Parts: sequence; C-alpha cells; structure tokens
Amino acid sequence: MDEQQLSPSSGPASIQEQHRQHIQPLGDWVRSHKNNGLRKADAGTTVTLMGWVQFRRDHGGLIFIDLRDRFGLTQVVFEPDTAPEAHERAHILRTEYVLAIRGTVRPRPEGMVNPNLETGEIEVVVSDWKLLNTSRTPPFLIEDRVEAADSLRLQHRYLDLRRPSVGRNLVLRSAAAKAVRDYLSDDGFLEVETPVLTKSTPEGARDFLVPSRLNQGQFFALPQSPQLFKQLLMMSGMDRYFQIVKCFRDEDLRADRQPEFTQIDIEMSFTTEEMVMAMAEGLMASVFKKTLGIDIPLPMPRMTYDEAMDKYGLDKPDLRFDLPLTDVTHVVRGSQFKVFAQAALVKGLRVPGGESMTRKEIDDLTEFVKIYGAKGLAWIKVRENEWQSPFAKFLSDEERAGLQAALNMQVGDLVFFQAGDADMVNTALGQLRNRLGEMLGLIDPDAFAFTWVTDFPLFEFDPEEKRWVARHHPFTSVQDAFASTMAADPGTAKARAYDMVLNGYEIGGGSIRNHTRPMQEAMFTALGFSQEQAEEEFGFLLEALDHGAPPHGGIAFGFDRIVMLLCKATSIRDVIAFPKTQKGSCPMTEAPSAVSARQLRDLGLKLRESAKA
Amino acid sequence: MDEQQLSPSSGPASIQEQHRQHIQPLGDWVRSHKNNGLRKADAGTTVTLMGWVQFRRDHGGLIFIDLRDRFGLTQVVFEPDTAPEAHERAHILRTEYVLAIRGTVRPRPEGMVNPNLETGEIEVVVSDWKLLNTSRTPPFLIEDRVEAADSLRLQHRYLDLRRPSVGRNLVLRSAAAKAVRDYLSDDGFLEVETPVLTKSTPEGARDFLVPSRLNQGQFFALPQSPQLFKQLLMMSGMDRYFQIVKCFRDEDLRADRQPEFTQIDIEMSFTTEEMVMAMAEGLMASVFKKTLGIDIPLPMPRMTYDEAMDKYGLDKPDLRFDLPLTDVTHVVRGSQFKVFAQAALVKGLRVPGGESMTRKEIDDLTEFVKIYGAKGLAWIKVRENEWQSPFAKFLSDEERAGLQAALNMQVGDLVFFQAGDADMVNTALGQLRNRLGEMLGLIDPDAFAFTWVTDFPLFEFDPEEKRWVARHHPFTSVQDAFASTMAADPGTAKARAYDMVLNGYEIGGGSIRNHTRPMQEAMFTALGFSQEQAEEEFGFLLEALDHGAPPHGGIAFGFDRIVMLLCKATSIRDVIAFPKTQKGSCPMTEAPSAVSARQLRDLGLKLRESAKA
Repeated sequence: MDEQQLSPSSGPASIQEQHRQHIQPLGDWVRSHKNNGLRKADAGTTVTLMGWVQFRRDHGGLIFIDLRDRFGLTQVVFEPDTAPEAHERAHILRTEYVLAIRGTVRPRPEGMVNPNLETGEIEVVVSDWKLLNTSRTPPFLIEDRVEAADSLRLQHRYLDLRRPSVGRNLVLRSAAAKAVRDYLSDDGFLEVETPVLTKSTPEGARDFLVPSRLNQGQFFALPQSPQLFKQLLMMSGMDRYFQIVKCFRDEDLRADRQPEFTQIDIEMSFTTEEMVMAMAEGLMASVFKKTLGIDIPLPMPRMTYDEAMDKYGLDKPDLRFDLPLTDVTHVVRGSQFKVFAQAALVKGLRVPGGESMTRKEIDDLTEFVKIYGAKGLAWIKVRENEWQSPFAKFLSDEERAGLQAALNMQVGDLVFFQAGDADMVNTALGQLRNRLGEMLGLIDPDAFAFTWVTDFPLFEFDPEEKRWVARHHPFTSVQDAFASTMAADPGTAKARAYDMVLNGYEIGGGSIRNHTRPMQEAMFTALGFSQEQAEEEFGFLLEALDHGAPPHGGIAFGFDRIVMLLCKATSIRDVIAFPKTQKGSCPMTEAPSAVSARQLRDLGLKLRESAKA
Repeated sequence: MDEQQLSPSSGPASIQEQHRQHIQPLGDWVRSHKNNGLRKADAGTTVTLMGWVQFRRDHGGLIFIDLRDRFGLTQVVFEPDTAPEAHERAHILRTEYVLAIRGTVRPRPEGMVNPNLETGEIEVVVSDWKLLNTSRTPPFLIEDRVEAADSLRLQHRYLDLRRPSVGRNLVLRSAAAKAVRDYLSDDGFLEVETPVLTKSTPEGARDFLVPSRLNQGQFFALPQSPQLFKQLLMMSGMDRYFQIVKCFRDEDLRADRQPEFTQIDIEMSFTTEEMVMAMAEGLMASVFKKTLGIDIPLPMPRMTYDEAMDKYGLDKPDLRFDLPLTDVTHVVRGSQFKVFAQAALVKGLRVPGGESMTRKEIDDLTEFVKIYGAKGLAWIKVRENEWQSPFAKFLSDEERAGLQAALNMQVGDLVFFQAGDADMVNTALGQLRNRLGEMLGLIDPDAFAFTWVTDFPLFEFDPEEKRWVARHHPFTSVQDAFASTMAADPGTAKARAYDMVLNGYEIGGGSIRNHTRPMQEAMFTALGFSQEQAEEEFGFLLEALDHGAPPHGGIAFGFDRIVMLLCKATSIRDVIAFPKTQKGSCPMTEAPSAVSARQLRDLGLKLRESAKA
C-alpha cells in the first residue's frame, strides 16, 4: 500500500494520469485461463491471465500481485531475474489496475501454499505483461468484509459488484433464471413476450404512465403484471405460457420494494389447481437443486388460509420453527379480565422455556406489536406453583385450568396473549411469532420451509374505498360452492387461489381464472362495477371470453424474492444489478432527471407549478 | 354450418346464450394426449382430448368434429349407437366451441384415411364429453388461408393467434430464445437484467419518458438499449453478459418498426473483434440448427463497409443473389452525356438477360429509384449489333468500349446506370438491385445468406444538426490507425465496429468500446461536446472508466428481425404476440388511452391545450 492508494477517489489523479501513458491495447493476447483455473498439475505451462490487482505486496525484491476476476484469484510474481523489464515496469501497479500477464505456472515454495484459495498451490512467474487500464483508488475496498454506506455502494455500483459476494448473487440469479427456463421449456411451456407499453387499468396498484407522442393526451401504462395478456394467450390456444418479465408498480417504497421487479409468470390451459401446483412444486425443486444442490421434499405441505391464520396468524407462515398460536377465546369469554372478556378473538402464543425472558425484552416486544395495532401485550410466566403475570389475578380457577390445558403450559414457559379484533390479533401475534423465532434462535439458517396456502377469501373489504375488492385480482374464479352466494355474501366466498410460501415470504401466488363471460361478469357485479364500467375497462376481455376461452389458470412467482432467499441475502437490492433507492432513484445515473422543454412539448405536456421546484 | 355460424360476431348471441347453460366445469378430467398425438398403434386406447371445434360435419346420423389445439387436429365421432346421450348433446357444437371428450381410438375406415394429417389414420369415438365453453362466431375463420384485414386481426389477436401459421411463429420464437440462452449460458455468459426505468440521454433516437411521482418534474426514460449498463457490467467484473431484453424507441413508425422491440444484448470483457465475431457466428449457427435444423456454414463471409458500398450500394447487402454494381465513373468522366460527365459517382448494374424487360417495367423501376432521391434511371439494352438506350447516342466509341469492358456487357443484357452524389447513387442502385432480385426470381426462398460487414466509418455527418455524429454510438472505439486524426478528419475515421447481415437485413451490430477515460473523452471531443456537457450527460460513465474498466466489446442482435427471417414472415408484427399498429396503438386493449385527472395531478403534469382534443 502506498499513499496514493489512500487518496480520495474524487481528488487529483496525477499519478494515475502518468500511469495512463503505459496503457497498451489488448492486441492479439487471449486469456488461457480464468483466475480460478490453475492447479499444481499445470506447473510448467505457459499461461495468459487477465484481471484486476486485488493486492500488491513487495517482498525480497519481488513484486507479488493477487490478480482477481469474478472467478477467483491467482498469485502472480514479477521477478527481476526472470524478466527484468517486466519487473521494472510493474512498480506502477496499484489496486484495481487492469492487466494482462504472460508467464509460467510453478508450485509455490514449501510453506507458502494457501489452502483457502483454489489456486493456492501455485503462482505464475511473469515473463511479459500489459497494462490494460489504470484506476483511481476505489472509495471502498473490493472485499466482502468491507461494509460501505448503501448510497456510496449504489453510486459506484460497478465497484460494489466487483465484491465477490455481490457478484456471486448475480451469478446465482442467472443460474436460477436458466433453471426456470429449462424446466418450463421441458414441460411444454412457451416463453412469450407481452407488451411493456400497455393500458392503464383501474384495479390494482398505481401505474407508471408513459405519455404517447403519436397520440397526444393519451398514455400507456407499464404492466403491473402481464395478467390479461397471459390469459389472452390461453384464449389464443398457446396452451402453456411462461415469461420471466419485468413488472412495475408506482408505490410509495416501503420496506424492501422496487419500482421495477421481476416475475416468473406462468399460465396453463385445461388445468386444475392440482396441475398448477404440481408444476410449480417441480419448478421450485428443480431451481433449488440446480442452483444450490438442495433436494426440496415433494409434495410440499399444504394448509388452508383459515388454518394458516388460526395457527400462525399470517397467510405466509414461516414454518422453519413451530411456536403455534392457540385460540383461547372460548376459555376466557366473560372473564373478569375485561380485555379478554368481550374480545372478538383472544389468542395465546406459548414460548417453551421463555420464562427467563427479561422485563426489558418483554417491553421491547410490547413496543413491537404496537406497530401492528396492538394496544399492549399480555403475558404469563409459568413458574413452579405460580404464574407470574400482570393480569393473571383476574382469571378464575376455571379459566386458569382452561388456559393451562388449551396451551399445554409447562413450568418455565412464557405465554403471550393478544385480544381484540381478529385482524389485529392475528397480525400482531403472527409478527411476534416471527420476531421470537429470530430472537430465540429457533431458525435454521440453512432451512427452506415451503408450504402452500389455499382456499383464500375471494374478496377483502377495502376500508378506504368502503367496498369489497378482489383479494388477488378480479380474474380469479370463485369456488363452486360459493358461486351462487358470492354477490350477496362476499365475505364468506372462497377463491380458487393458492400461494406458495417460503420461509415466511409469499414467493408465488395464482389461481384458476374466470374463463366464461358470465363468470367474469358475475365477479365484476360482485365488485360493484356497472355493466358500462365493466365494458369500458374490460370490454376486450369479456369479448375474448366470449370467443371460446378454454379453462385456464396459473401462477406468478416473485423472482427477486426467490433469488434473495437462494442467496441468503437480506434485501432484494442485493440480487438486482442496478437497484433503485428507497426514493425510487438511481444514484449512479441520477435517474430520474429533468428533461428538455422540447421533449415535454412533443408529448403535449406541461409541468404543474408544484413540479417545477 | 348453420346460420348461426354466419351471424356477425357483434350481433345478438341468443343461441350461444342458450348453449352456455350446458357448460360444465373441467372437474377431474385430465388430457391424456394433445390433438397431434394419436396414431394407429393407439387403437383401442381410452383417451381424453380437449380443444376447439375446428369443423363439424354431420353424416349418416353421426357427428364428426375436427378437434383442434395448437399441436394439431384429431377427428372425433359422436355415434348414437355408442353413446346416445353424448351424441344427442353434441348437436349444439359449433365452430370454436371448447370441449373435452373421452373416447376410444379406432382406425379410420378404409378410404377415410387422411395422409395430410398426423392423426389421419385414426378417429376417436366419443363415450362422454363436456362443453367447456361456447363461442360467438369468429369474425374470420381460424385457418391459414384466410386473409382478414390487419386491423380486424389485431383487434381479435387472440383469434388470429389460433391460426396455425401465426401460432407457429410464437413457437419458433420461443425455441429461438431458448437456443440463444442455451448457447450463451454454455459459453459462460450470465444473463443480467438491466433497468427499464433509466435516464434519458441526448444521443440517439427519441426516448419514451416515464414521469416520476416521487420526484415530480423529473422523468425516467425507457432504454433504447442497455448499452451503458452492459458496459458497466463489464466494469463490474461480470466478464460475459447477455440479456434478451425489451428496448424502446419513440420514432415515427415507418416501414416495419415497433415502439418496443427485443434485442439479444451481449458484452464480453478482455475481448477483440475476432472473439466477438466467432461467438456471434456460433450463436447464430446454433439458433438456426436448433430451430430449423439448418447448418450455417462457418466462418461467415466478411467484407468491409467500403467493399459493400462499392459492390452492392448498401451496407446490408443481400447475398442471396449476385447482380453487383460496377463503378464506371472513370469511364464516362467528361462524357458528352452531361448527367455522367461531372457526377461524383457513376455506377452501372448489369442485369444478364434483362433485355426482354418491358418499357412499363423500366418505368416502374424508374419511379422506384426516385424514392431514394434519384432523378431518373438511365439504361441500355444490349442487342445484336446495337444498344437500345435513350442516352447511348451521347457516348463516344471509347466510352462505349469502356462501359462494355467494365460491365462485361453481353447481348441480351440490360444495364441500369445512376449518376450523382455517392450516397444517392449507392442507395438508389442498391435498392434497385434488391428489387430486381425479387422481381427476377433470383432469390432462393430457402437461402440464408449471412455476411459480416466490417470497418465502418466511425462518424457520419448529420445534415439536420450540421455536425458529425457517431454512426453506431459514441461508445464505439476508433481503429488505432485513426486515433490521432479522428478529431481533425472525422470523415475518414474507421470504427472497430461490425454488423452481421442476413438476407439484406442488418440483424446484429457491435463494436469494441472505449474502455479508458481518455479514449472516451477524445470521442466526446470529436463529437463537439464541451467538457461540461460530457460531464453532465455521461459523467458517471467517465468516472466508471476511471476505476479500472477492462477492455470490452460486444454486439446486439435484433431478435424480432431474426425470428421474422427464421419464420419466413414478411413483417416483425407476425412474430410478436401483441404488436402495435403503425400508429403505435393496440386495437385490442385500446392502449394508449386517456388517464384520470388525478393520475396527472399525482405526477405534477398538465395536458397542453393541443393535447386535450
């Protein structure tokens, strides 16, 4: 390391500028190996390697370079005795300089072998080399263990991606996409591209719009999913369709969302739920086998939506650990403890051996559940001959016995309770359960716990719009048993819908669709559409359904999420080459950006005053 | 056929509505075969088939249906003796109704075998069946030989795609994409997704813009290509990248263009032209082998840009036929024929045996070349002992002899001439050559004639902007020999660029890129950018180049065009599932469309008065 390597990247680069004059064209040099390719058996071979200077070490008059590419590292040595001119020139080499070397492989001297490196038994003695490019000192080291600020990493994403762990995520992503395509192609699916410039539709999230210049005053929308197009492809007789496809949602970016994301989109004709689910299981098993070498046991477990909510409080339960919830509403109905007495739902969550939890820890968890609308968090510590609890004194003996039995409470346990409306109780305890799973180390970091969740409600009540909306989307078909009652009693109607859940994430969701015009019209009616509205927004779909649409259904997987889980990354940004920030912008290219007055005029647009700031 | 089948699709559908009550759910019925799957050896097997009614024929008390899916046709028979109830119900069946049948395979009776059908030796006798959907009478027949108007086909694209030839194009497209991915994955390329929401850049065609809601007044642009991102991936050490990716250009739609199109985008590190070209040849050979079973001879022929212009007048010569152009400028320099005397370029195109062409045909060709800026078209018919020609009388004996020799004119030939500035002469005669190739039947419809065109000019003069612009794009590297002169003499500078041409179409183009900051800065300077301008527009690229960019280069293929040629289609619209019209709109979904005032307000936008019409 010399001082130059510590100077800020934005500073003057005079040494680099001097070094630039030594840059040579690649000419007819061709790599013979990648930097992970050489072994002891290659000793004596003449090789040509190319890559970046990961590290330079001067020792005993020799210059040692760790030469890096995305495949690995090779130690190369510049020796004055072997090639004096090459050695002399090598004094300019600095971190991240790019070079091509020619030399001879030799075993490393006794004691210098590096067992942690694929190429650790050899080094390459340089006979000739070319400087292919210089580099400023990078603003952060190109190593896994360096943690630079997110904003700096995204601004210099091309450097961030040189870090082995980040680059490896893209390699795994590419392999996963290939595995998906291989499996689906072998299974008779066609990959068909659907339009990116399409129509804005009212149901769903907010669309990104694209103003049309040829039709001023009109707009395309970027697709939130190719849902209607894939259904139209089934009506086109394509039989089986898939696409790995970019989708877009102009949402306020909370948590781990991106404005553009990638979906594995699948649709099948003449299908039932069982056929889609069997295909989807085979697909995921193949992806995990081909990328990680892991066997996913099939068939995957299944539970209904009601079971999931009852036992785990969430419709995407993390099954890597147990900690089930228990409904104790009936036990404490009419209790002296007012919070329980009249609550629509009271549930308990028993933490075996949780009695040692501190008051501070319980207080933190109480704050945590408040995020999900809970007012507090009731608890009982089960001790020898007594329950320690702020509220247990209000419980009758019968209630105590009832809880004990229902929850199978054992000495040393801690039991949490939540009471109130069902949505809040389930969400708060379901999230608490996930939090406890992590906090108590119950989660095997290498586990992949898949499950299906089935029999979803067809509708959910939108409190903002004060109406029933489709829980999945309005093209989902109702289960036969609810077909005649769904309009009058939307709350009880079940959908022919299924989600695939992995480690607490919904990674895929799908349904059997409405394939006849009357089925689709009934759905629009239940959603409160007038006939005119249905015609205006979805007339082309209704007309297509009226021209011999086959029964069809499918599924869509969140590809970013799946790759994140494959990579054991903690954010989808770690598996996207050039992600956006939480503000939906790109610090590297500085998109979005202002455009010229002429561009706006061509589109028939003006900025509002508020947008000119 | 009954009357119902001839009623307009928009009319009342009372019979269809009556039939709808017979629709049954799929239940547990599962297809056993596709409609191309059964053979004589399957006789006696019980099968379950699903599909559309292609054709119904009632004969001798039996009902025959040709059942269609995208794989083929199977004849199914409803017999009153075999299954009276199934036969009775089958009277409702009409064209494009969707059904599932169960029945038994049997050989067709002697004399009823259809050798043109894969399943022509068998039929299936129905034991039970389900009506899965009804259909209105389609507005055009679902057959290859029917030619409906484009607008009607696009409005009912889901019906158009049921026609075997159109559906087959999508099958071939999917297979071609798979072949591309298999080849490139095997060759060490990673598929990496690059952003769709990116930055508007000034060089190139007009961008589609996407207003940002979170950053009002700012805009994303849809990518015209992932050019900079793929270069950044090389700087990221990804080594070899590819992507089959949607790209966007907001151009006035002339000829056979689409606002969104698909590119096979490829980039390699530590590469030379030879390595990119060898990879690209292998890729195309693999695609043609895997989709059509055709062996493309490798290596492909090569010619320089200058050779292509000289001999064929175009930089994308159609080599399926000969008809070369010949430069005769020197022969007629100073001729009495004023049109030739002082023209910058005079070229002849000899049509062997063309002497029989009629005056009408020659007049039509004269009109044709006027499209390309020609004022007329000079010609000579070579007859025994005389030249028939409107202008030959102005030629001296020496000039006649010179032309005869230069063009190797033979009795029976027709020779066309064009004189003027080089661009016009080459374009007009090059296009005339293509026209003659078709008109004279010189083109083998099964031929695939590939060639490389190399050594392109780095710049071209833009008469509108009155400045030199990059012919490919400003990231293309100059050939070493012109590095020091390109700023002073842009017109002569040659690029490290190469195009792959197939049957007269440019199907791919690429280059070795500027990989150092000084190289890229020199290019911007030659293009007349100020340093500030370069920094503002491409600062992030210059900074990335300054952090150890490896030498890199690549190529991008027009995937739609390649698939069009594979399919022997005449328009890229025939190989795109849901194409836009020439007006850039979709007659099926009616995109683009008006959006709500609220959507515009959220984006900080107003429509100009002109756009409110």
